[in-house]
Amino acid sequence: MSEDVYIIGAGETKFGELWERSLRELAVEAGLKAVENAGVYSKDIQVLYGSNSLAGTINAQNDIGSLIADFSGIASNHIPAIRIEASSASGAAAVREAYLAIKSGEYDCVMVGAVEKMTDLYGPEMLDHVSTLLDREWEAFFGATPAAMAALTARKYMHDFNVEKENIMAIPISDHRNASMNPDAHFRNKLTMETAMGATMISEPLNMMDCAPMSDGAAALVIASGSFMKRNRLNGVRILSSGISQDFLALHSRNSIYTMDSTVLAARQAMEKAGLKHKDMSFLEIHDSYSIYGITAIEDLGFAKKGKAAEVIQSGIDINSALPINPSGGLKAKGYPIGAAGVSQFVEAVLQLTEKAGQRQIKDARYGMMHSIAGTGSTSLVHIVGGE
Amino acid sequence: MSEDVYIIGAGETKFGELWERSLRELAVEAGLKAVENAGVYSKDIQVLYGSNSLAGTINAQNDIGSLIADFSGIASNHIPAIRIEASSASGAAAVREAYLAIKSGEYDCVMVGAVEKMTDLYGPEMLDHVSTLLDREWEAFFGATPAAMAALTARKYMHDFNVEKENIMAIPISDHRNASMNPDAHFRNKLTMETAMGATMISEPLNMMDCAPMSDGAAALVIASGSFMKRNRLNGVRILSSGISQDFLALHSRNSIYTMDSTVLAARQAMEKAGLKHKDMSFLEIHDSYSIYGITAIEDLGFAKKGKAAEVIQSGIDINSALPINPSGGLKAKGYPIGAAGVSQFVEAVLQLTEKAGQRQIKDARYGMMHSIAGTGSTSLVHIVGGE
Repeated sequence: MSEDVYIIGAGETKFGELWERSLRELAVEAGLKAVENAGVYSKDIQVLYGSNSLAGTINAQNDIGSLIADFSGIASNHIPAIRIEASSASGAAAVREAYLAIKSGEYDCVMVGAVEKMTDLYGPEMLDHVSTLLDREWEAFFGATPAAMAALTARKYMHDFNVEKENIMAIPISDHRNASMNPDAHFRNKLTMETAMGATMISEPLNMMDCAPMSDGAAALVIASGSFMKRNRLNGVRILSSGISQDFLALHSRNSIYTMDSTVLAARQAMEKAGLKHKDMSFLEIHDSYSIYGITAIEDLGFAKKGKAAEVIQSGIDINSALPINPSGGLKAKGYPIGAAGVSQFVEAVLQLTEKAGQRQIKDARYGMMHSIAGTGSTSLVHIVGGE
Repeated sequence: MSEDVYIIGAGETKFGELWERSLRELAVEAGLKAVENAGVYSKDIQVLYGSNSLAGTINAQNDIGSLIADFSGIASNHIPAIRIEASSASGAAAVREAYLAIKSGEYDCVMVGAVEKMTDLYGPEMLDHVSTLLDREWEAFFGATPAAMAALTARKYMHDFNVEKENIMAIPISDHRNASMNPDAHFRNKLTMETAMGATMISEPLNMMDCAPMSDGAAALVIASGSFMKRNRLNGVRILSSGISQDFLALHSRNSIYTMDSTVLAARQAMEKAGLKHKDMSFLEIHDSYSIYGITAIEDLGFAKKGKAAEVIQSGIDINSALPINPSGGLKAKGYPIGAAGVSQFVEAVLQLTEKAGQRQIKDARYGMMHSIAGTGSTSLVHIVGGE
């Protein structure tokens, strides 16, 4: 029998436009918070899985695993570090590698350190960097951007299912409401439907309030085997299951423009392995890099039939409802440091499941589902955490 | 007991300046060769570990795992893909993740697909891309390049141990001799000491013949559990052990400029886990991105005392000697597609250990050691393969 896997420590920086702080500073802050939260020493860490999406292009820095290991001090203990990249799903992919590393029996205690420093560049240059997440030769070279691809999905979805834009905008509005209670969030202002609908257009029908921001930020986890945790009398939140699946890189190759098969399959794996039902989930953290992806996630994760996410939203997705979505504020309002977003979902899960989420605490939270997608859905990961 | 891990298939492209071929074409060719060599179907692959170092900057393409999965056709089976990055050790790090993934019991049969397309850009811009492997803020911003850092090491080494430049140049000369027998090699010309010593200076004391070239190329492996291999009546080469260790990112932070502690420690781990002695090794594939790193590797891997690598070289490192080094031609002559170099070392090992290395076959090859370093040695990996 392979080992059970637990998150024994979690930490993150504030998300935002942190102009005065560097890539490495952010990574170190989150890492030290996670180690302190775990109640271990940094020498207890046996390997670091770094997660980052765009530092090679934005910050002219590769070998991000080594960078984090160096500046957090663990390199002085010769603790190895490698970086995991799966576009905007890098963070969740790093958690999965940590999970497998513990299961392999090779490691007892590993760290996931995720960081993105988005605001060192601006303008068209930045847009081109972000478009490295698309298929360069068949999408980005022709001018496609991530927002444009999401807009295609939104337009077709609204047409085929006769959905109003307001139904989609309900996700960002809910995100901002939750983020107003999260001190780490990039945006803490509440949004009205009128303000949101009237924001500057980005790529019709998506306006600025449909699009997650470019945030700086870092998040880190200490992940350990059940036996390490017990031996050291620590506490943790169990990673019950990890699902991952794949689709074509370019949107035009997929079976559907508004069903992410990779999410459907990853969710199915995660649910089966956890042996749980959808109604068992106390909350979801979903990858709403664009509002429409929040809508499709609700459906692809199995919480609504295709075209029917609005019904779920109407029955309530706030922290007091039957299905709280993005209690953290989500990518839209907590913020979207690309390679760190997936890991910060787990930080929220740990807070919720250990009843330390303050104002936004979900009552009797027991199981959480974390959802990440790469770009427009090339790779999806779904993790379920919680239980005893 | 966790599973034994075997390489059941290996393939690579020719290395070189392949101007007419794209990143994705190269990746697919290597992947298909590996699948064919393994005697499995692509649907048998359960996960792809992509390895790449610089496509984000050179080719404006991230999400390389998805790119390879897409164009090799395995994305149509929803086989997940993530990318592993550890600078120039990315390939070896991807092999290690595959090894752990099998050990975890989560997977039976995985693919490592490694690719680098270096020649889409040239000149100063390219130099800056390659320098993303150094510490950007403390090295590259001040004009340091990988060649300059290696030159510092070479100068100090030659001074402290009273070593002549010819002793160091012996590595590239041996590499070219072996590569002349390798149809996949970038350079197949033999070098004389006179020609080599007279080449254009790059960063004194290192000239062009001390520096591995910028090569395009791809390499792929199919890696499986022992039970998968037996169940399907396949053959394979066993991965006996995997070692990994770390040092600071910037050269100036290290204990020594010419001892890579990360290599010393990774080699020790790999030897201990394999339960073998240095004299058991039939051949080494070492990371000689610069000739001096070939010298320090011989010492740091434990085959010579510090400062004494020249003695090992003088006693013979060709394919008929007691310790053949880089039978493939090494990074200098087989070529150096950065993120693919580490994986192509395993391709050579499979050829040697299955007696398919043609003209450069090492007699009675039984165990091989593969060595990779990230940049100037921030991360090192050592793998030992072979046995029964």
